[in-house]
Amino acid sequence: MIVLASKSASRRAMLEAVGVEFEAQAADLDERALEAGMVGSPPDAIALALAEAKALAISGTTRLVLGSDSLVVVNGQRFDKPADRAEAARHLRLFSGKVMHLHSAAAIARGGKIVWRQAAEARLHVRTLSDPFIETYLDAEWPEVGHCVGVFRIEARGPQLFEQIEGDQFTVLGMPLLPVLGALRELGELPK
Amino acid sequence: MIVLASKSASRRAMLEAVGVEFEAQAADLDERALEAGMVGSPPDAIALALAEAKALAISGTTRLVLGSDSLVVVNGQRFDKPADRAEAARHLRLFSGKVMHLHSAAAIARGGKIVWRQAAEARLHVRTLSDPFIETYLDAEWPEVGHCVGVFRIEARGPQLFEQIEGDQFTVLGMPLLPVLGALRELGELPK
Repeated sequence: MIVLASKSASRRAMLEAVGVEFEAQAADLDERALEAGMVGSPPDAIALALAEAKALAISGTTRLVLGSDSLVVVNGQRFDKPADRAEAARHLRLFSGKVMHLHSAAAIARGGKIVWRQAAEARLHVRTLSDPFIETYLDAEWPEVGHCVGVFRIEARGPQLFEQIEGDQFTVLGMPLLPVLGALRELGELPK
Repeated sequence: MIVLASKSASRRAMLEAVGVEFEAQAADLDERALEAGMVGSPPDAIALALAEAKALAISGTTRLVLGSDSLVVVNGQRFDKPADRAEAARHLRLFSGKVMHLHSAAAIARGGKIVWRQAAEARLHVRTLSDPFIETYLDAEWPEVGHCVGVFRIEARGPQLFEQIEGDQFTVLGMPLLPVLGALRELGELPK
């Protein structure tokens, strides 16, 4: 049994599907303050720092604590979740025809120390999206995609946005699951 | 509305999730006979020929017909679905520490002619699997993985088998969905 330092539905679902026993506990963390101190750092470094901070924020357990974070960069610009449908449409117009870089990171803490960390990147090639397509897409996907920094759910209509995806599905879902499972095996939490 | 020349649950699920309207119709086809005539052909060519044959086997419709096929090759050897749990374990022992090549192909027919076809490959790096792990895995995954040529369900415990996956999730699930969506847009079936 591990502790997942996150309430993220997609990260919970990944661990559940693969049979890892965990309890989820949201990390009490001022993400904005941490990021503010890292302006100008590479996206992988920011995602790793946030994953580590989440894992370290859970204390008072002898269990392994898994933290994870992901962020989206297009044209060198970091994107947050859209605040409303109009902003979602603006983001999609900006993504159109570009490569979306999705950085996912994970870190594992034990006894208040980080014992493992890894980042992975997926590159999602967004096709040229017409304005009518964007409206039709948001008719189907809003408000659900309001929770998604990339304005897509890969398990729903998200694939309609892309002509090619480089990187595995777990990185796309926000956590590099295969390296995490490898670390849990090395740390004695899962059978080899 | 298109016709999916397949009753495969994973292909149906992919089209449903992304919002493509279709009706599924199983192609009446002697796959073994077709393959027997292609012994020695590259896996991509065999998967493409089967996808085309499935699409062409549905007649009497003016709709676009989508056929798809996938096959698994490890160490140059083609693997079929395991007949029983003992064979599943044997396959997993053979996959251990190797690269699994998963070839997925799709073809679209209209009016009895193939108008589009494409194959894609995913490479799944299987980690070294211990015999106890294989038994524990099959305790959880048999008999469901009896329907899977690679002896894994990527949406369940399948990720436990792999240390790395190259290729997108749709290719892994048995149909190169992103190129299929691109073709359906070009053929006027989906909005751009």
